[in-house]
Amino acid sequence: MIVYARPVRFEEVDAAGILFFGRTMNFCHEAMENFFGALAGGYVDLIMNRKIGFPAVHVEADWVAPLRYGDEARIAVSVSKIGTTSCTFRYAITRAQDGANVATVNHVTVSTDLRTMTKVPLPPDVRTLLEAHASS
Amino acid sequence: MIVYARPVRFEEVDAAGILFFGRTMNFCHEAMENFFGALAGGYVDLIMNRKIGFPAVHVEADWVAPLRYGDEARIAVSVSKIGTTSCTFRYAITRAQDGANVATVNHVTVSTDLRTMTKVPLPPDVRTLLEAHASS
Amino acid sequence: MIVYARPVRFEEVDAAGILFFGRTMNFCHEAMENFFGALAGGYVDLIMNRKIGFPAVHVEADWVAPLRYGDEARIAVSVSKIGTTSCTFRYAITRAQDGANVATVNHVTVSTDLRTMTKVPLPPDVRTLLEAHASS
Amino acid sequence: MIVYARPVRFEEVDAAGILFFGRTMNFCHEAMENFFGALAGGYVDLIMNRKIGFPAVHVEADWVAPLRYGDEARIAVSVSKIGTTSCTFRYAITRAQDGANVATVNHVTVSTDLRTMTKVPLPPDVRTLLEAHASS
Repeated sequence: MIVYARPVRFEEVDAAGILFFGRTMNFCHEAMENFFGALAGGYVDLIMNRKIGFPAVHVEADWVAPLRYGDEARIAVSVSKIGTTSCTFRYAITRAQDGANVATVNHVTVSTDLRTMTKVPLPPDVRTLLEAHASS
Repeated sequence: MIVYARPVRFEEVDAAGILFFGRTMNFCHEAMENFFGALAGGYVDLIMNRKIGFPAVHVEADWVAPLRYGDEARIAVSVSKIGTTSCTFRYAITRAQDGANVATVNHVTVSTDLRTMTKVPLPPDVRTLLEAHASS
Repeated sequence: MIVYARPVRFEEVDAAGILFFGRTMNFCHEAMENFFGALAGGYVDLIMNRKIGFPAVHVEADWVAPLRYGDEARIAVSVSKIGTTSCTFRYAITRAQDGANVATVNHVTVSTDLRTMTKVPLPPDVRTLLEAHASS
Repeated sequence: MIVYARPVRFEEVDAAGILFFGRTMNFCHEAMENFFGALAGGYVDLIMNRKIGFPAVHVEADWVAPLRYGDEARIAVSVSKIGTTSCTFRYAITRAQDGANVATVNHVTVSTDLRTMTKVPLPPDVRTLLEAHASS
């Protein structure tokens, strides 16, 4: 498990005054990029040079409390499933100041050659990293 | 069922060159706002004057094909479940130019007093609109 | 002059409840894309196939009134200067419901080969379009 | 002068593969929020409790080099002018890995009562902070 924290920004709330629900995915993706930071070159090198990405094929999210401007989100990332070409991340989001549960997100991604947009086996270094953080 | 269409904008793709998956929720929310357009004052009046919003409590999304800059998304909105305080929208997203399936999103929302952030029964005019578009 | 109109969306306001100032540029860029719609293939074809873009090198913006959720922005686009490799767009933004002035944006762009990120002469079809809308 | 650094995120580039120019304003605003972090309660308390905001009335920006996904922006914030109700921030943005100049932004803001959207004198604690970082 790896934890990533960051505040809700001024322009990330909506007209109801809470974090726009779709932007929860930005928080999760940032946490995932941070997770891949342990890899040589990180997620940036995967995308920009190795041309391997992890598009979402399935997301399931539950929200139990809103986040407002100034709240800090604490996002715990773990890996709940590792396949041949796919892997599933799980994000448990809490509000840093009081530990309140905010949301849980399950995010199924497929290892994809970005030049052809076809699935490819998880690269060995990625698999090793995922296995090191597999929840079980 | 109501259909809302709009192009993928220049700044909505990500470094992999496809619509950022979280922004799929922006497309769905726009389609939902458009759906509420049949209401007097629309979604704007609900949020800004009546102070009633519909925060997401659950989202389940499946993607089968990416959208790129210039593609037009066609989003068919229907209502799959109507409760006392909650309702579930279903969005079937296709690519306008070839009809390809892009994504399906189920979006459970709760009718909420935005001043107190507590759930309230669906307002009668909202319920009537939802019932008119209930899939079954 | 070409006019492009669109509403302020639910997730485009900030924690102060008004359109986030940086997003004014999104409105202008959409208006510019719409302007290029008169070209065969539009802005999409320029970017995706011809690999010619128009990155901003200078922007000057003045705001006189805020936009809120539900307001509709009316953006009048004109071309105030045409050079060999650059052109300047001018956007006059008003609030549709009452005609109030919102903002004025001047946007200097440079015709750029996106593969090399070097400036190139304005393509002839682009120049013809720009000249047709030159204010003076 | 205060320096704020942050990477360009996966979803912040546009279809031309570079940081969308309007999002440069998000970077500047984050740097400004960080600048206000020296204040008790920070920018969040100003907006959420004191109901004082600093909407932009004028922005002038020059770009000399693009930022791509994975680049880190280094944003040096200084205060170039302090009036009775207004203040001007200056942001010098460089690319962290090579020190290349990216952009310079001048940002004139007006101290505003967010309940009435009317200008108010700069609060004393804000003025003191601004004066401590006045350039020249």
